[in-house]
Amino acid sequence: MARDERPKGGIRADARRNRAAIVRVTIETLRRNPEASIPEIAAAAGVGRMTLYGHFPTRAELLEAALADALERGERTLGRLDLVGDPRDVLVQLIDTSWVLVDESRALLAAAQKQLPPARIRELHEQAEARVRELLTWGQGEGAFRADLPVDWLVSVTHLVIHGAADEVAAGRLTPDDASRVIRETLLGAFTRRDTGDS
Amino acid sequence: MARDERPKGGIRADARRNRAAIVRVTIETLRRNPEASIPEIAAAAGVGRMTLYGHFPTRAELLEAALADALERGERTLGRLDLVGDPRDVLVQLIDTSWVLVDESRALLAAAQKQLPPARIRELHEQAEARVRELLTWGQGEGAFRADLPVDWLVSVTHLVIHGAADEVAAGRLTPDDASRVIRETLLGAFTRRDTGDS
Repeated sequence: MARDERPKGGIRADARRNRAAIVRVTIETLRRNPEASIPEIAAAAGVGRMTLYGHFPTRAELLEAALADALERGERTLGRLDLVGDPRDVLVQLIDTSWVLVDESRALLAAAQKQLPPARIRELHEQAEARVRELLTWGQGEGAFRADLPVDWLVSVTHLVIHGAADEVAAGRLTPDDASRVIRETLLGAFTRRDTGDS
Repeated sequence: MARDERPKGGIRADARRNRAAIVRVTIETLRRNPEASIPEIAAAAGVGRMTLYGHFPTRAELLEAALADALERGERTLGRLDLVGDPRDVLVQLIDTSWVLVDESRALLAAAQKQLPPARIRELHEQAEARVRELLTWGQGEGAFRADLPVDWLVSVTHLVIHGAADEVAAGRLTPDDASRVIRETLLGAFTRRDTGDS
């Protein structure tokens, strides 16, 4: 039976558990070894290679499912951020939450970027991006973030800086311990209007 | 005779002119059509396809030569920036110069990124990066740029923000006319210490 014809409710419980286990270990396995093979990922999930291929016929499909899963978990965490109080404090919370997730899933994202088209990667990020846009729009309205830069641009800069920090950590040019502070200071600096031209 | 054994002085003048013409039109041709084929690039340079293949046996070699050429031109322009006066003004000059070049060569860089390993792309950027690092280190020493962020990070952010703006322009989310201002405001904001915590 072709994969697309199989109704979701028809997957037996153990198959669902296997699928979830495979998706979850993929991120961790790639983190330890970005070149991890499909048999290695299957072994880490405690399933046979054929079981893995039954769920994910290609490496691209596995990476896409793992990335979607990581982003959903992020979305659940970001969804708990309340847009109340000082927008700068909420931005700091968002940065700290996102950084942990991006740092954990850096190897997965790098692997996915090699296999999936950029438009698909962007699509997967859409919900998280909407959450960031909502926060930044609110902060601009509150006068906490500069409104002379388009909100789309602030969203892009947030993404670039957090992912850029992950790349710098991977390259050994930034320590993981320092990354969160560096991201925070960079974004708050960029998004907060300077009150004096000179100082 | 193998390519590497051929002494540079032995290339005849017209072959040298052909090579230079091919390299120069590559950037412009890709800008009009990022998918431009080798025969189209040869036609734009006014040479035959076999002449082009004689200089650049693969698409990757052509893209590498064109990217190296664009970066050398950038380096010559950046090399004229004097590190005197207010570091913020020199940063603005550097941004304006770099932006024109990055915007012109966006399609070339995207094509090169598909064909060349990231380490090679980074290597080609090394001289331009050294110039940016020199300016930012000087500005930190002068107290114009915040010194609580590592200079390597400031270099990365400069690169990310300029290239990110080029991607946003390509995606239609930022107008080319607004890009230079947006880059400038973002980087000056990020690199300039906020004097007051709240305002």
